Amino acid sequence: MSVTAAKGFTASGIAAGIKENGNPDLALVVNNGPRLAAAGVFTSNRVKAAPVLWSEQVLKGGQVQAVVLNSGGANACTGPKGFQDTHATAEKVAEVLDLNAGEVAVASTGLIGVTLPMDKLLPGVESAAAQLSEHGGEKAAIAIKTTDTVHKTAVATSEAGWTVGGMAKGAGMLAPGLATMLVVLTTDADVDTAHLDKALRSATRTTFDRVDSDGCMSTNDTVLLLASGASEVAPDQGEFAEAVRSVCADLARQLIGDAEGASKDIRIEVVNAASEDDAVEVGRSIARNNLLKCAIHGEDPNWGRVLSAIGTTSAAFDPNQLNVAINGVWVCKEGSVGEDRDLVDMRYREVAITADLAAGGAEPVVIWANDLTAEYVHENSAYSS
Amino acid sequence: MSVTAAKGFTASGIAAGIKENGNPDLALVVNNGPRLAAAGVFTSNRVKAAPVLWSEQVLKGGQVQAVVLNSGGANACTGPKGFQDTHATAEKVAEVLDLNAGEVAVASTGLIGVTLPMDKLLPGVESAAAQLSEHGGEKAAIAIKTTDTVHKTAVATSEAGWTVGGMAKGAGMLAPGLATMLVVLTTDADVDTAHLDKALRSATRTTFDRVDSDGCMSTNDTVLLLASGASEVAPDQGEFAEAVRSVCADLARQLIGDAEGASKDIRIEVVNAASEDDAVEVGRSIARNNLLKCAIHGEDPNWGRVLSAIGTTSAAFDPNQLNVAINGVWVCKEGSVGEDRDLVDMRYREVAITADLAAGGAEPVVIWANDLTAEYVHENSAYSS
Repeated sequence: MSVTAAKGFTASGIAAGIKENGNPDLALVVNNGPRLAAAGVFTSNRVKAAPVLWSEQVLKGGQVQAVVLNSGGANACTGPKGFQDTHATAEKVAEVLDLNAGEVAVASTGLIGVTLPMDKLLPGVESAAAQLSEHGGEKAAIAIKTTDTVHKTAVATSEAGWTVGGMAKGAGMLAPGLATMLVVLTTDADVDTAHLDKALRSATRTTFDRVDSDGCMSTNDTVLLLASGASEVAPDQGEFAEAVRSVCADLARQLIGDAEGASKDIRIEVVNAASEDDAVEVGRSIARNNLLKCAIHGEDPNWGRVLSAIGTTSAAFDPNQLNVAINGVWVCKEGSVGEDRDLVDMRYREVAITADLAAGGAEPVVIWANDLTAEYVHENSAYSS
Repeated sequence: MSVTAAKGFTASGIAAGIKENGNPDLALVVNNGPRLAAAGVFTSNRVKAAPVLWSEQVLKGGQVQAVVLNSGGANACTGPKGFQDTHATAEKVAEVLDLNAGEVAVASTGLIGVTLPMDKLLPGVESAAAQLSEHGGEKAAIAIKTTDTVHKTAVATSEAGWTVGGMAKGAGMLAPGLATMLVVLTTDADVDTAHLDKALRSATRTTFDRVDSDGCMSTNDTVLLLASGASEVAPDQGEFAEAVRSVCADLARQLIGDAEGASKDIRIEVVNAASEDDAVEVGRSIARNNLLKCAIHGEDPNWGRVLSAIGTTSAAFDPNQLNVAINGVWVCKEGSVGEDRDLVDMRYREVAITADLAAGGAEPVVIWANDLTAEYVHENSAYSS
């Protein structure tokens, strides 16, 4: 399903030889219209990869005809040569498909600081173009994997006759603003650029921006939303925004579920904060606390580490009013010992932490994180990635 | 040597039975004067342990006659009962030594969220008092260990006839502002409270505040500096401040060298920043990057992860002007590929990372950190700590 669930899109995924192991590493997604509207959200890291710098410019035009994505190399910190390579990739797509290169977005993922093998990538673009298909969404999703163990896709369909579908990759370097991930969403709903942009920003703010696998922010994050208008249905904007949000939330949850070396998915909910910003700050601080992440790995409901993490924030709270529940057991009440920690059952992969700041009436905020494991250390120390 | 290197101090360390394994767990340090001046610096975590809340009040008086320290329990997040226990501990010391409880500082370290076994601690105070000795500094240093594999002491002596000595504990939860550590420094120099405070704050700002083992900030950090005046020498303030700084730097380096599970000590130097604040922000961001910490563990000079960490800061820099050296090899020049990474020799425990922001003329800043290892995960997941 993936990016070809919506009408008006073709896609493909092939092995161009960028990855030394011969796995698929090049994907192409093409919007066949009639509309070519597009919106994008990119990493907030100030060290941006060449394809991010390029695609940010492309998106300013509000139209995207094709997206070319490669795994096997991030093309980040590669200087002028890296930018030239991205430009040449877009030009190649434009030449092969008879498009305007200024409407070709480029995304890359892999090791930072290494230039791409253009002698393999450019012929790969020709092969990928030759294999474009209305059923190519899954192959495209497979071709963008790096350390992902599974490919990630999601779809939402409206009774009104339109669809939102998407694919994502991302396993490590997951942190707000955004994760190390590439995401392409497509829709056949008839939506203009301004409304696409609004729906996408609203959706990423509460989904991809609220997963935090390891506190590390990538140089290459890219989330694109392309609209073909092929359903010829102009959607209700609220329903459309909710569909985009639900697809993003589904993909974000899949990213956390496949994070490098993780054995637990941790759902951190912050309630009764004075403001949404306070709740997000507290949730992220808990999500990034290595000691807590280790404790969760050890199935130890060590709530002291939750309080210790909350205490490093600037959020409004009284230390003597804090309450913390782990998997529904209020192990900390009013900043001190609460219910018996032996009541907490932590056998399952999903762990729920609720931090009650008792400081106000803000809506609850949920941040997703992972535990810290020896396997994470191994995956990120045994070889360059 | 430790806290009894300076004249005018006695100390002891005993096993009171707070730790279930029977190891030493209670230390006492007494200032016999003639001066009783003292200064203190405490954790900036807003969730503060009971002994921190107590000792902050004690220090406001500017005089400390005795410090009682226990390992085996942090007495943090223990509510009103925890504060009563700290108060009772100080009262017990006052009763046994015929002092004013308001001039007895208390420090605790160990698991958060567990109350102390006062039935063991209070009799322990009597035993510790009975064993006070001018040679007790080392025993005191041993009694405050938690997961430390070695006890930490340092001494600086002036030709003018005075001495600064100290002891420290701390192995995990090390992060700026401050680390999970207890430090007691003593001096027989004749210094008043105001000058002690100035020297101590200046020293901790560039030593303990610049070690970051795991990004986790403790609830119990305490650094005390006690002056007895027993040398009857009023020191040159500059020389005295430098002696305090050198003892703090020595102890801070020992903390990093004994951090939980670490196999590498990483010296991160940030040069050519626009300001000292920028340099500290960048240094801390590099120090806390889990992916980089894993790469260093794997002896992989993955400079892309250094740039990725710099990119998350608000410091002044141009991504295309950044330079990074690892163990003296400039693997990144002007934001892109520099010298051959195969030239980097990473076999030794100490690894030096230099981040050149090329943004200004601030003095270089050094932050110390550790790598991230499977042993760290094990130590912090296999049991509560």
